[in-house]
Amino acid sequence: MLCAVIGLVFAFVLIAIVARASAGNERMREIAGAVQEGAKAYLNRQVVTISVIAVIIFVLLWYFKDHPTAIGFMVGAFCSLAAGFIGMRIAVIANVRTTQAATSSLTRALRMAFNGGAVTGLLVVGLALLAVSIFYTVADKMVSHDMAIRSLVGLALGASLISVFARLGGGIYTKAADVGADLVGKIEQGFEEDDPRNPATIADNVGDNVGDCAGMAADVFETYAVSLIGAILVGALTLSGNSAATVYPFVLGGISVLSAICGVIFVNVAKGKPAAVLMGGVVTSAIVSGILFWPATHLLFPDGLTIAGIARTPTQLYFASAVGLVMTAVVVAITNYYTSMRYSPVQKIARASETGHATNIIAGLAVGQHATALPVGFIGIAILLSFHFAGLYGIAIAVMSMLSMAGIIISLDSFGPITDNAGGVAVMSGLPKEVRSVTDQLDAVGNTMKAVTKGYAIASAGLAALVLFGSYVEELKAHNPAFAQFTFSLTEPKVIIGLFLGGLLPFIFTAFSMDAVGKAAGAVVREVRRQLKAKPGILTGQDTPEYGTCVDIVTKAALREMIIPALLPLIFVVAVAIIKPLGPVVLGGLLVGTIVTGLFVAIAMTSSGGAWDNAKKFIEEGNLGGKGSFAHQAAVTGDTVGDPYKDTAGPAINPMIKVVNIVAILIIPIFF
Amino acid sequence: MLCAVIGLVFAFVLIAIVARASAGNERMREIAGAVQEGAKAYLNRQVVTISVIAVIIFVLLWYFKDHPTAIGFMVGAFCSLAAGFIGMRIAVIANVRTTQAATSSLTRALRMAFNGGAVTGLLVVGLALLAVSIFYTVADKMVSHDMAIRSLVGLALGASLISVFARLGGGIYTKAADVGADLVGKIEQGFEEDDPRNPATIADNVGDNVGDCAGMAADVFETYAVSLIGAILVGALTLSGNSAATVYPFVLGGISVLSAICGVIFVNVAKGKPAAVLMGGVVTSAIVSGILFWPATHLLFPDGLTIAGIARTPTQLYFASAVGLVMTAVVVAITNYYTSMRYSPVQKIARASETGHATNIIAGLAVGQHATALPVGFIGIAILLSFHFAGLYGIAIAVMSMLSMAGIIISLDSFGPITDNAGGVAVMSGLPKEVRSVTDQLDAVGNTMKAVTKGYAIASAGLAALVLFGSYVEELKAHNPAFAQFTFSLTEPKVIIGLFLGGLLPFIFTAFSMDAVGKAAGAVVREVRRQLKAKPGILTGQDTPEYGTCVDIVTKAALREMIIPALLPLIFVVAVAIIKPLGPVVLGGLLVGTIVTGLFVAIAMTSSGGAWDNAKKFIEEGNLGGKGSFAHQAAVTGDTVGDPYKDTAGPAINPMIKVVNIVAILIIPIFF
Repeated sequence: MLCAVIGLVFAFVLIAIVARASAGNERMREIAGAVQEGAKAYLNRQVVTISVIAVIIFVLLWYFKDHPTAIGFMVGAFCSLAAGFIGMRIAVIANVRTTQAATSSLTRALRMAFNGGAVTGLLVVGLALLAVSIFYTVADKMVSHDMAIRSLVGLALGASLISVFARLGGGIYTKAADVGADLVGKIEQGFEEDDPRNPATIADNVGDNVGDCAGMAADVFETYAVSLIGAILVGALTLSGNSAATVYPFVLGGISVLSAICGVIFVNVAKGKPAAVLMGGVVTSAIVSGILFWPATHLLFPDGLTIAGIARTPTQLYFASAVGLVMTAVVVAITNYYTSMRYSPVQKIARASETGHATNIIAGLAVGQHATALPVGFIGIAILLSFHFAGLYGIAIAVMSMLSMAGIIISLDSFGPITDNAGGVAVMSGLPKEVRSVTDQLDAVGNTMKAVTKGYAIASAGLAALVLFGSYVEELKAHNPAFAQFTFSLTEPKVIIGLFLGGLLPFIFTAFSMDAVGKAAGAVVREVRRQLKAKPGILTGQDTPEYGTCVDIVTKAALREMIIPALLPLIFVVAVAIIKPLGPVVLGGLLVGTIVTGLFVAIAMTSSGGAWDNAKKFIEEGNLGGKGSFAHQAAVTGDTVGDPYKDTAGPAINPMIKVVNIVAILIIPIFF
Repeated sequence: MLCAVIGLVFAFVLIAIVARASAGNERMREIAGAVQEGAKAYLNRQVVTISVIAVIIFVLLWYFKDHPTAIGFMVGAFCSLAAGFIGMRIAVIANVRTTQAATSSLTRALRMAFNGGAVTGLLVVGLALLAVSIFYTVADKMVSHDMAIRSLVGLALGASLISVFARLGGGIYTKAADVGADLVGKIEQGFEEDDPRNPATIADNVGDNVGDCAGMAADVFETYAVSLIGAILVGALTLSGNSAATVYPFVLGGISVLSAICGVIFVNVAKGKPAAVLMGGVVTSAIVSGILFWPATHLLFPDGLTIAGIARTPTQLYFASAVGLVMTAVVVAITNYYTSMRYSPVQKIARASETGHATNIIAGLAVGQHATALPVGFIGIAILLSFHFAGLYGIAIAVMSMLSMAGIIISLDSFGPITDNAGGVAVMSGLPKEVRSVTDQLDAVGNTMKAVTKGYAIASAGLAALVLFGSYVEELKAHNPAFAQFTFSLTEPKVIIGLFLGGLLPFIFTAFSMDAVGKAAGAVVREVRRQLKAKPGILTGQDTPEYGTCVDIVTKAALREMIIPALLPLIFVVAVAIIKPLGPVVLGGLLVGTIVTGLFVAIAMTSSGGAWDNAKKFIEEGNLGGKGSFAHQAAVTGDTVGDPYKDTAGPAINPMIKVVNIVAILIIPIFF
């Protein structure tokens, strides 16, 4: 808790630093104000929509489950929403200040954007750590120890469910606005990015904030909270009676707040190329964690820990946590290889663009599929190693240690949309080319950072879900004696059917999400065409477009379209639980099936998307004919296909696979 | 055996009927001759390449395994190659005769093309049934009963491995030629399809034969043989001592040859719309099978059968086989819905084309993912039902009964490339528009038939692979007492790692296949550009393009590019078996993981591809602006992306998931 408070205090110091900086001239403040307003309007409506659903689930839990779980649900939901909200608020303040800083120097702009992102990063981990530990401490005093631990599942559900909505709603918003703005603006009218004549341009900039900032913050808040709770559950279910095992995940989390602060400080004092400075921050943070984990583990478990009858030394436990840190580095490096324009995959896509739209798409899809191989291989190694060191608890510890890096990783991720917006403000307020050149450089770095952190988010989500599946099995065995000896064997047809049904979920979930983007983008296209037709003066600059109408239309469309895909996994799990010949065995298979295909689909989608984006940037830098060439047109097509891939459907799989697992744990006592 | 011989005799009667028909005027014969020559040249080289690999594996099996298995491998490999070869030979004879028949009437052309396809269909099932039964009878006399049954696995491997090569080699050939011809021809030069000025046009037509005819014939030959062998294995491993259980799959196969003949006769006498007549043939065939299975089952098992300690009535066994017939109908209907232009999925893609290339691609990808839901759901139901009726043996019977429909299904499938070629011949030989209109109608029907049969091929392959996995587990338990009580439990980390590694295979396998198409197509593009530059007279019709050079280039490229993806699954399985911390448990998980993701990836890819193709056709029929409109350009992009999806990567997953399972069974005594 102390570390969490330190993290929050440091975040407020950063807020003060960011807020004190100049917000630029009047025109800049005006544009930033429009974006702020749009983002606030969207998030307010999103809060209302989600609250309605949250209240319904709260009531269901209150009556059909128990009160602590219902309260836990509300706490999780509230904090997840708050994390997203705060992340968005600070981002819309930092964007215009980054533009202003870019007028003086690259380093200043880099630090401004990064500090804006770091606020979100520190708030998310501080909030998650504080919420879980306070709730757990209070619940442990109020109800039985057993009940307190189980009610944490309610908190996890609250966090996950909100996160599915935030990811989907924000993801649909940002990509509908982006695709809609591009389709009419760039392709039909030949506008540049962020051209103030494009009626959808403010909506596009709002999208960066509500999707990439608020959505991502809610998502990682959820993964963090769920990993922490998963580790506590596994500790409690398999190591009942050992309180150090329950405390250990909190200790890892607490230490990592401190190491994240070290990383933030590093970025604020280091000099060099933006990408190198940011990566230096991550490395600093990992090294500090790696060093501090050693004494902490030995202090907490002076005599080691007996897990499933096997005595483990503190050094073995330390190694399990080190696996998580190494995995973070490995996943970051791999995703960087597949999505950075300096390596062959992206350049292959760029070259394929020379022969047309179709070959660009084929190459991009192939790169995404190739990109699944190494992360999945390393996840396999991480599972083997951490299980070898400390059984299922070892896997849970490795996941928690991986997630403990979230503070610094989210700082990088939020950096992306802030620089993207900073560029938008620069163009729309007509600042000189040099400023735009600075924001462009930062934007390119931000793109890679966004892609890299997505790989991290998915790998950690997959591992966290595996821990939850372990909890499902333990919980089922503890609850129903009929399953005490049951093994979920692959020779059991019901398990196979479960794997198929679970495997299906990521496929139809992403299909619905992409449809949703398509529909919402269609609404934007029609509105932009209508405005350009009604006011021909917009094209010549004599008329001002009605930005607000576009913002309003995307807001409504995104909130409407997110409902079906977001409720899909919930309904799926409950249906499998209720329908007679299916039940708990099929459900167990379903949980694993969702994790397996979810991991592949999410990695393939986000990698393809990132690679397409940077292939376009690679051409725009003047390679293979540069901007306006035939290859560039094909690359724009790939980038547009990649948008819903990498920013809506792909990342929304993360919370989805966890929602599925958490709901399954929660309904055990109700249906089985 | 008798039924198989009847089927083969009937096939030869059809050959005589087809060969007797007129091959048209000199120009038509000349063009058809060029296609025939190209196809023969490719297949000859493919035979040489594959033979080298087959001989190496034969030698390995001979020394490290046993002689019967090695001989079985050779028999399987030879028959699979033969099935592909014969299928191709008859297709290149039937194509030009279909064009000639189209000059007199639609019905005549339909029957000519269908009879050409039916030859392949009957030959494939006749050959498979005959090869397996003769080999089994002879082996049973020469070596022990146990050894005879095990050596059948060698035959299955021979068939599967060749089929992977044939599917990949043919698939890469046909799509490299197609994409290459389209990229330069249609997009750069504005040629129509099959324009004789396009140097790649003969290669494109050759591709239809070597990919869609020879590749598909080898593929379904393999699925048929493997399902038959799988059912025998399950019968022998779990019901040892009951010979009726081993004979039953043969009986189902034999009956279905007769019902396929009934289906063929129906198509040759019925009148009506082409699609309705062809579907009538399938329905006839299914009804005849459904009726004849009943007395056969009761005659063979007058007292029922005791499976895993439970007594099953003959009626229960009949129901298990009926599940397979119903599944065939269900899968055909579902795939038809997602890929026919009469329903909303294809029309949605067509409408999305109006807003550009990117939205067309997004819509197509989403449709493919949606299309996985129903087939997988029904596969789940089929597994539940057939297992309910007769345990694992029931699943094997359902698969065999589904495969028994292969005779009539392949007839439909081969119909596609024959009509496609017939259209090519009509255009290139300058026949009047009315003839082209007839072949165009048949071509559109052929497209849907091809898409529909792919759904069937994948669903049956997935089920067949599940049966093989069951055999793997039984074989492992029988071989190594350490695994006698082992359950492949989802709570075992090694099983999860296996699921991940197996799940990875379809993703990287298809990624490599698509890369292969991209590379080979690039070679075609360069060659076509070179010819058009060297001989400008080609464009004006004064110079004749060098068709042969293009054929030669695609041949070499396809054979070179198929090696890596084809050997990938083989190497993967052996590596997992050998590498120390992995071994038999991880391998078991791998087998299931490959089936799960393979099924989804294959269905999604083939459905997307079919839907894109027909979305383009829908626009070309004059909807949404028709040919040459902006929407049409976008639809062409989708169609081009869909080409390697539906004709190379997607269908090659079928043999791949079986190769993985068969190799695993085969190496049990060597490594575990």
